[in-house]
Amino acid sequence: MYPSKVEVTEVGTRDGFQYEKTFIPTIQKIQVINELVAAGIRRIEATSFVSPRAVPQMADAAEVMAGIERVPGLKIACLIPNHQGAARAIAAGADEIVAICSASQSHNQANLNRSTEKSIEGFGVIVEAATKANVTVHSALAVAFGCPFEGDVSPEHVSDLVGHIYRAGIKNVTLGDTTGMATPQIVEKVVKTLQDTHPDVSYALHFHNTRAIGLVNVMAGLACGISKYESSIGGLGGCPFAPGASGNICTEDLVYLLAESTIETGIDLSRLIECSKHLQQIVGRELPGQVMKAGPRLKLHDFEASNRATG
Amino acid sequence: MYPSKVEVTEVGTRDGFQYEKTFIPTIQKIQVINELVAAGIRRIEATSFVSPRAVPQMADAAEVMAGIERVPGLKIACLIPNHQGAARAIAAGADEIVAICSASQSHNQANLNRSTEKSIEGFGVIVEAATKANVTVHSALAVAFGCPFEGDVSPEHVSDLVGHIYRAGIKNVTLGDTTGMATPQIVEKVVKTLQDTHPDVSYALHFHNTRAIGLVNVMAGLACGISKYESSIGGLGGCPFAPGASGNICTEDLVYLLAESTIETGIDLSRLIECSKHLQQIVGRELPGQVMKAGPRLKLHDFEASNRATG
Repeated sequence: MYPSKVEVTEVGTRDGFQYEKTFIPTIQKIQVINELVAAGIRRIEATSFVSPRAVPQMADAAEVMAGIERVPGLKIACLIPNHQGAARAIAAGADEIVAICSASQSHNQANLNRSTEKSIEGFGVIVEAATKANVTVHSALAVAFGCPFEGDVSPEHVSDLVGHIYRAGIKNVTLGDTTGMATPQIVEKVVKTLQDTHPDVSYALHFHNTRAIGLVNVMAGLACGISKYESSIGGLGGCPFAPGASGNICTEDLVYLLAESTIETGIDLSRLIECSKHLQQIVGRELPGQVMKAGPRLKLHDFEASNRATG
Repeated sequence: MYPSKVEVTEVGTRDGFQYEKTFIPTIQKIQVINELVAAGIRRIEATSFVSPRAVPQMADAAEVMAGIERVPGLKIACLIPNHQGAARAIAAGADEIVAICSASQSHNQANLNRSTEKSIEGFGVIVEAATKANVTVHSALAVAFGCPFEGDVSPEHVSDLVGHIYRAGIKNVTLGDTTGMATPQIVEKVVKTLQDTHPDVSYALHFHNTRAIGLVNVMAGLACGISKYESSIGGLGGCPFAPGASGNICTEDLVYLLAESTIETGIDLSRLIECSKHLQQIVGRELPGQVMKAGPRLKLHDFEASNRATG
């Protein structure tokens, strides 16, 4: 039984923009976020408070935060790698902060230059500071469905890490398929293991379309009852290990699929498509999103004007 | 319960190539087909015997047929619009012919310049000629999940047409999602209706990825027990109504998904990826297939060589 309602978190301005080599002007980042809000998206991972040396594209995180037009019910989340990032995000007015950690040691080392134990150990201070500021803490567990360095990651290991995260005081965990290694069977195994071992945690799924089956994995998540998904407008983003490979699953394609599966999102598909087309202009190239090219399914075509159909 | 084995029919050299504006040299068409056979594909809709004026790319259909290296168990199918096409396909050595008709009047008019009744009426002569030549006849029902001119097509109407086709002596029907209007719910409705009303027909599903959910629709078909799918190497193909939109679902992405779902296809994914990369050289551009860019999921990366991971 699928959930009747799904919360879509937009991550394009964080997970997508971080791959853009040319600096996107702050005003354009803000425009995209405000258009997403106008389309009805109510949770946005807007930016990240990381080292500007490591990710120059995110150097304007505080200015981006200041430009967002807040509406009732809107939650602006920021990714943070450590307690310094958390302090900056809280000061910038984040509603939620997302503390990251990887499901494998090697990915955590490559990404955060420390062990997973050290990362999770640091969550205590972050939760303390956030709680004081009335900011919710989520955790994002990268490479939860497979690691590009180590291969398969066992559901039991993911469950152990979620246990540590939960004991650090974090009740919302996003399972990240960072390099697109999830498959429907793996999604089912990992999610069911976690629902069994840590039923009090609220889970979100963050899929990449690196191997073309991101939306298939969403269906596997829905079948397990998961009602929170993360995606990127236009399918913006990439994969550091595979030049030319797709990034995150595409928000408007996800919203189309959910709408056609009679699952409520509160999001206006046409406005989302407009935003995605605007984003294509901003980044100056075609993005992988499909629905923006084809239009909604009942956008009909003129029979007379068509001189040739197809078999 | 998913089927344990699936037959993948490659349609790229027909449904894909027909959109290519530049004529692909016959020898290259033959090379692609032979590479697909070498990768383990055992059913190929190799070409179509249509008017060379309408589809110049298919003018070399007989020469393509003559160049295919036959191996035991290989079935070469040809699309045909009428009995003249059938006669040419049979003469060229087709194992199977695919007689087309649309599920909507307007699409049939645009595609074949006659009513659906007239099309199906013509199937009698085709079946007679094919039976004499020991050639199996399949029928492909285009726009079975929605018509770009008329919108929704009712499952009952599709069922009526399948009834007529079955009574014309055809026991294999492919349901074509010609312009990518299928959704998981529609697939389930149409397939279940047909399984109920015409249980003796063997069904295949032909999805396009026009709106990003082609592989999701495959999962919906698998859940209904359908074990035959059609796809295009590299995701070659297009949509006459949406410039830039994707064509057929991509063969190697489909094979990857099936393998990861422990469904047997008998196809070697690495050889398929090689064929897809060769095809990119032939058509001179990047194709939408994802797995060929990212590689299989357990293609691991060197931790030391990676200077930056991702969140």
